[in-house]
Order: sequence, then structure tokens, then C-alpha cells
Amino acid sequence: MPELRKDPVLGRWVIISTERAKRPKDFKAAPEKKVVSPKSCPFCPGNEAATPPEIFAYRTEGTEPNTPGWTLRVISNKFPALLIEGDINRHGEGIYDRMNGIGAHEVIIETPDHEADLADLELSHFKNVIYAYQQRIKDLKNDPRLRYVMIFKNFGAAAGASLEHSHSQLIATPVVPKRVTEEMDGARRYFEYRDRCIFCDIVVQETKDRKRLISENNSYILICPFAPRFPFETWILPRSHMSNFEEATEQQLDDLASILKDCLMRIKKALNIPPYNYIIHTTPITLKGIEFYHFHLEIIPVLTHIAGFEWGTGFYINPTGPEESASYLKNIL
Amino acid sequence: MPELRKDPVLGRWVIISTERAKRPKDFKAAPEKKVVSPKSCPFCPGNEAATPPEIFAYRTEGTEPNTPGWTLRVISNKFPALLIEGDINRHGEGIYDRMNGIGAHEVIIETPDHEADLADLELSHFKNVIYAYQQRIKDLKNDPRLRYVMIFKNFGAAAGASLEHSHSQLIATPVVPKRVTEEMDGARRYFEYRDRCIFCDIVVQETKDRKRLISENNSYILICPFAPRFPFETWILPRSHMSNFEEATEQQLDDLASILKDCLMRIKKALNIPPYNYIIHTTPITLKGIEFYHFHLEIIPVLTHIAGFEWGTGFYINPTGPEESASYLKNIL
Repeated sequence: MPELRKDPVLGRWVIISTERAKRPKDFKAAPEKKVVSPKSCPFCPGNEAATPPEIFAYRTEGTEPNTPGWTLRVISNKFPALLIEGDINRHGEGIYDRMNGIGAHEVIIETPDHEADLADLELSHFKNVIYAYQQRIKDLKNDPRLRYVMIFKNFGAAAGASLEHSHSQLIATPVVPKRVTEEMDGARRYFEYRDRCIFCDIVVQETKDRKRLISENNSYILICPFAPRFPFETWILPRSHMSNFEEATEQQLDDLASILKDCLMRIKKALNIPPYNYIIHTTPITLKGIEFYHFHLEIIPVLTHIAGFEWGTGFYINPTGPEESASYLKNIL
Repeated sequence: MPELRKDPVLGRWVIISTERAKRPKDFKAAPEKKVVSPKSCPFCPGNEAATPPEIFAYRTEGTEPNTPGWTLRVISNKFPALLIEGDINRHGEGIYDRMNGIGAHEVIIETPDHEADLADLELSHFKNVIYAYQQRIKDLKNDPRLRYVMIFKNFGAAAGASLEHSHSQLIATPVVPKRVTEEMDGARRYFEYRDRCIFCDIVVQETKDRKRLISENNSYILICPFAPRFPFETWILPRSHMSNFEEATEQQLDDLASILKDCLMRIKKALNIPPYNYIIHTTPITLKGIEFYHFHLEIIPVLTHIAGFEWGTGFYINPTGPEESASYLKNIL
């Protein structure tokens, strides 16, 4: 059973993973770059038996679960960071706090095509990826042990992807993550002071200034944020206030697919298919209609290393200003 | 002039660096592994003119500054993240906050030997490295514009080192970094609740339990912390309460050199010379004798990638428990 442990000073939780445990000697050799052919790829059609059973899929009518015929497939992670079965058993050990690693860890296999890149999927297919994200959150909201559902994508080995077949992940946690609490707290303080949502104010200022604006559609803007940690860090923000991703309408989901695809195509072209992460930032699943918090999506190309200064301070040194990154991404297509 | 910008939601500062600016096209090619010979290494004796003038050095009596004859040399970083000259000029831009990038960015060249590894330096030499850290903090405390001095080492390209000649760095900032504030706040809350320093309590529990204890001497313990973010993350904690690194006595500095060298030798042997970062965690320079905060040092081998889940949540997934890491490091020498 994986274990959640809390840093007693910072209140930061870590997951001590047992399902993906590594022994000390596993770290000695440099990790091998695994090249996996479609024949042996567990995410390819025909190999459905190599993964845990599917939880959700878009598939051709008349085809059976866990057989070919799907265009998108959601499964439990075979090496989950958290397990769905069991009791949470919160307990102490002297001054320390721990609990069992209860939660969900799912994989969204975005396409049956082993070679396909998410950025290049047809828009109609890309929309299904976004629909699937929302479906899974709506389903997991029913589990009273869970507090947060985080949806994210790691693309490329340097961004943490262990398989190259295009996929996203979902991890649902029994506590609200520290980073989410910090964002909520920061946004709440701003609201208390000004009676306005800070993200709404960002949208207003960025739409007016335009110097960090990359593209936009009816529902969203794509910007490089004012204080980015990384070169080419980009954010997608809904134009209208909306606290929860799972409340988005079909039109809003379609527009999100469209602007995220646009963003990924720009980054791919500008930076020669860099590794990247993206993360959906939304409220904890127990909350609804929060006036001070605004759902958004952050995209981080992996171009630099985190070093001692960043670890020690939480400061980031960014060698490329967001105005320059935005201007470059704006004109790349 | 570099610029400090504040994320309006999280209150996190970033440095938009101009001295080390990168144009968008600089990111297109994979970074080349630079192999630098002693002849062209700016940190090697004989090449002193290739660096900014020295600020501090240990050198043979009778030798001139900025000439050979030194055993340790401190210089300004040639490509500083922050600049020492100028006005801080705090100002706003709509809802955003910014200030000039005032501060210090220094390099501690630990040895004249291009091939030497810090872990293998003679203990007497290693002590000079620690003495130099303390000297530089004591000096920079006199600059009223500065709030914090962070000392850290990046070893290996994956840990952010751009030159292989053994060196550490110092960055002094005009604001207290967010991560430091968070640590101070967490430790203060614990003190308010229990009237004890949390780090002192960690020392008591770890010294009694011993299952995460790697080694110890008169002044310090070396442990894997209860909730480590990374495999083989280790911390050095003073046994007795001490809030500021710069208040350490000569005996305490000697003992720190001894246990840090011991730690680096263990990590080097256990993990086949991995990249790593270490960071001295101490109080802001404007504070002294704080009863709730306890200086310490964190050592992080770079063995895993930070991915979307970590960025989004502030959670870390660690595949190796600290008890196992500690047991392995304890028995490796």
C-alpha cells in the first residue's frame, strides 16, 4: 500500500510509492531510452489485455470493452501512485503524520495510433480528449474519500513520460494538494481586498495590453503569464468567470480543445517538439461556483533544469521574458 | 537590468534574467555537452582574468589577488541573475508588481584543481569552503538592500551546473524568498502550538528512532527526512538549536564540513557520482537568534524528473522510502 507522508515544517505531502518502488541499485545506471514498437506497446489496439480493464472509452458501436475498436480509452494506471481500494487510516508517528495512499490514478490513452502526436489529432478527436477529462472528474466526484482530481499530461522522457504512446493522466487525492491551497488562498486574499476575481482581472489586463497575448477564441485567451517560471510557459484562461473545469459547457469544452491544440502546435513548431507538461488547475471537487477562483490550464515546455537556487528559494530564474516568448509564439504559425 | 516579477496569485517571485538572456531560437537545438579543458576553463589558475575580479580568496602569502596562488576563490558571477549596482525601484504595472533585479550573485570556486570533486577534497580544504560560505554571508549582511543570502551547489549538468570545475554559488535577494517564508511560517506555527522548535523535535525523534539516521558527529546528524520528495534526499541538522548558519562557531563549521563531506562521499558511492544540489537553509539576514527556526542543509540527488503532477499539486511521488535510502547510505562506506 502506498503511503502519504506530510513534511512537518512545510505541510507538503509526498507519496511514498510501493507499486512503482525502486531499489537503491535501480538508480545506479543511467535510465535506458526504451523504444517500444506498436506490437509490444500496452496502449496499442490488440494489447488491451496488457493493461488494467478500461474504465471509460469512446469506441465504435458494437465493439466490446477491452478489445480494439476504441478511439480513446481510460484505464487504471498499472503502477498506480495511489490505490482506490482500502481505508485511509490517518495516523501519527511521533511528531509525524501519515495516511494510506488512497486515491485514483488513471491513464487517458488519447488515440489508438502509436505514432500520433496530440497536437496533430483532428480537432473532433481532440475534443473527445477534453470530454473524457471532464467525464472522469464528474465520475470521481462521487467518491466521498476524494478531495481533488488533477489532470495532467507529461510529454517526452524529460517531462516524466515513461511511455511514448500519446496519453494523459489523472490522479485523485484524499487531501487538497498544497499548491492548490496556495492558489486558492492567494486568489481569496485578492478577492477580499478588491471584490474581484484575480484571474478575471488578469484576463482584462492581458486582453487590453496584448503584449503577452498569443491567441484567443470566443471562450479563452492564450497568454504567457506576467511572471513565468520558465521560457515559453503559457496559460489558457477562460474569458468568463468559471471556477470548476467540470462545469464547462460543451461549447466551452470545444473551445478549450481548439485553443489547447493551437497552443501545442505553436510550441511544437517554435521549439522543435520539446518535452512539456500541462496541468488543469481547477477547484477541489467538493467546491462549486467559487467566486474568487477561476479554472485555467498551464503549459510548461521543459527547456531548463531546476537547480539549487530554485529548490531553496521557490524563486525561478527565467532567461526569456514572457513578452518575447509571446511574440515569438504569436507569429510562429 | 534583470527584473523581479511577482506572480499575483501565488506571490512567487521570478527573475527575468537579462544578463543570461536566451532568444527563442536558443532553445531549438539540444544543449551541447561542453567539455572544457583546464587551459580554457575560467575557473582554473592562470585564467583569473577571464572572470570578474575576486571578492575573497584563500591564497598563499605574498601572492597577488587575481593571480595564481589561491586554494579557494570567490568572484562575482560573470552572468549574474541579479546585479549589485542600481536602485531597486519597486513599481506596479496594472495589477502586477515588479522591481529591479538588485542583489548579489557570486561563485565560490572551491579548488584550483579542474578535476577535483568536492567530496574528495582533504577535510582541511573542505573546511575552507564552509568558512568561505560564512564569510560571504557576514559581509553581505552589511548591505541594507538585501534580505536573504542563499548558498547552494549544483553538481552536474542535470542539476543545473554549466561548468564542471567544482564550485558553489551564492545569490543574495532583496526580498525574502517564498520557500523561506513558508518554512519560517510552518516552524512558527509549530512553536506557537508546542513551545518547541520543530527541528529540535525532529533531531530528538530521529536520534531515538535511528531508522532514518545515516551518520552523526558531535554537532550534527545526517538523516533521510520522514517525508522526502526524492530518493536519497538527505538533510544535515545541528543537534543543538541554532537559527543562523552565520552564527556557527569554528568547531561547528568544522563539524559541518566533516558531515557534509561524509554525506557527499556516501551519495557518490551509492549512486555512481549522480548530479546533485545542496542548499543551506538559514534565516533571513535581518533576523538573529530566532527560537522557532533551526538552520539546516538539504542535499538532493537528481535521479527523477519533475512532471505534471508535481507541478500541479506540490505533491511529490517518491519511489524509494527514506528508511530504505538511509539504510543503504548508512552501510555504503
